[in-house]
Amino acid sequence: MSSSKPSSSRQDPGSVPAAVVNRLSMYLRELQHLLADGQETTSSSQLGHRLGFTDAQVRKDLAHFGHFGHPGIGYRCDELVGAIRRILGTDREWRVALVGVGNLGRALLGYRGFHRQGFRLVAAFDTDPAMIDTKIEGVLIYDILRLAEIVSAEQVELGLVAVPASDAQDVANQLVAAGVGGILNFAPVTLTVPSTVSKVGVDLARELEQVTFSVANRLKVDES
Amino acid sequence: MSSSKPSSSRQDPGSVPAAVVNRLSMYLRELQHLLADGQETTSSSQLGHRLGFTDAQVRKDLAHFGHFGHPGIGYRCDELVGAIRRILGTDREWRVALVGVGNLGRALLGYRGFHRQGFRLVAAFDTDPAMIDTKIEGVLIYDILRLAEIVSAEQVELGLVAVPASDAQDVANQLVAAGVGGILNFAPVTLTVPSTVSKVGVDLARELEQVTFSVANRLKVDES
Repeated sequence: MSSSKPSSSRQDPGSVPAAVVNRLSMYLRELQHLLADGQETTSSSQLGHRLGFTDAQVRKDLAHFGHFGHPGIGYRCDELVGAIRRILGTDREWRVALVGVGNLGRALLGYRGFHRQGFRLVAAFDTDPAMIDTKIEGVLIYDILRLAEIVSAEQVELGLVAVPASDAQDVANQLVAAGVGGILNFAPVTLTVPSTVSKVGVDLARELEQVTFSVANRLKVDES
Repeated sequence: MSSSKPSSSRQDPGSVPAAVVNRLSMYLRELQHLLADGQETTSSSQLGHRLGFTDAQVRKDLAHFGHFGHPGIGYRCDELVGAIRRILGTDREWRVALVGVGNLGRALLGYRGFHRQGFRLVAAFDTDPAMIDTKIEGVLIYDILRLAEIVSAEQVELGLVAVPASDAQDVANQLVAAGVGGILNFAPVTLTVPSTVSKVGVDLARELEQVTFSVANRLKVDES
């Protein structure tokens, strides 16, 4: 192995657009697939081609965070996987709790992609007495009244909100009060959280509107 | 009402970034909430404030598609809702089929946000004989072997792929061959489709990585 370590100095983390972070996750997945296929090195053009981006886009995105290529070699897949996981914060396990065990909640409990990327679902909450103290996909369901207690005891860092829209803000308030640092919200409502808490909203109709936009306008959406 | 109609001329639709389209959906939701609350007009600063964007961002995003404000009034909520729906292509109903009726598929069948935004789930497909010819949330489940036949008969335009990653490309190929114009993919794999077909991938771990990125880096992700 070369002695030139990749730099992971961040040039300006405060100015990184969400779309770049989103693409880092996509690069990570492709690199993981390449590694699984036994490929040790790759290039910005190969990585870009597999995802429909230009090689310039790949290089520009990575340049936000340092220099990861090696002259004459390109990127070492395992090294770049490690670097991207450090950037994304998933070079360690995150303890996650789910609130709301309806169909979507069950789907989230069974979603293998979470575990694969370092997310460990350690608790779930619901109000349905028939569900409380049962396990789904190996995760124990607690009475939502115990949220603060269990978040603390299980050292939960991230919350998944999968309750109806009308309950989502209240649940978010409880998660924030209990000390979680980030929330992924599936309810079709915009949550208000303190600036110290990170949140991302997943609105499935919004995703579908991205599809209809490009169908209706007969163009490929530029994912930059 | 003023005689000045909002222009909906698109200045350069080919260059619209996905993030802008994403925010259009967010503006649309907020405008719908405002209308539901009985508010007839709004401003870029109010709209931005509710979503955590600057007023300049809101104006810049909308300027991609025309001029929608009125001097001294701001935006008329119903007018802007109509304009954004036309831009997104959701000023009409879209006929949608689901492939894969596991937990996630069931969650999608019950997801009210789709119906509310003009998406009509007209068919679902699975391989499980126990499920075929039953209805879930009012949607009939068909044998996946009948996909081409039903997509044609039901005039399905969009497909939701909620099958395991190993089956997703095959399902996408079948949907494309059957003539759908767009695909929303929930399987954690990058699909290859012809350039004439639109696709958006929903990777739930990727969404969660957006949260960990900003928690790990203790900063708010710039959603521009």
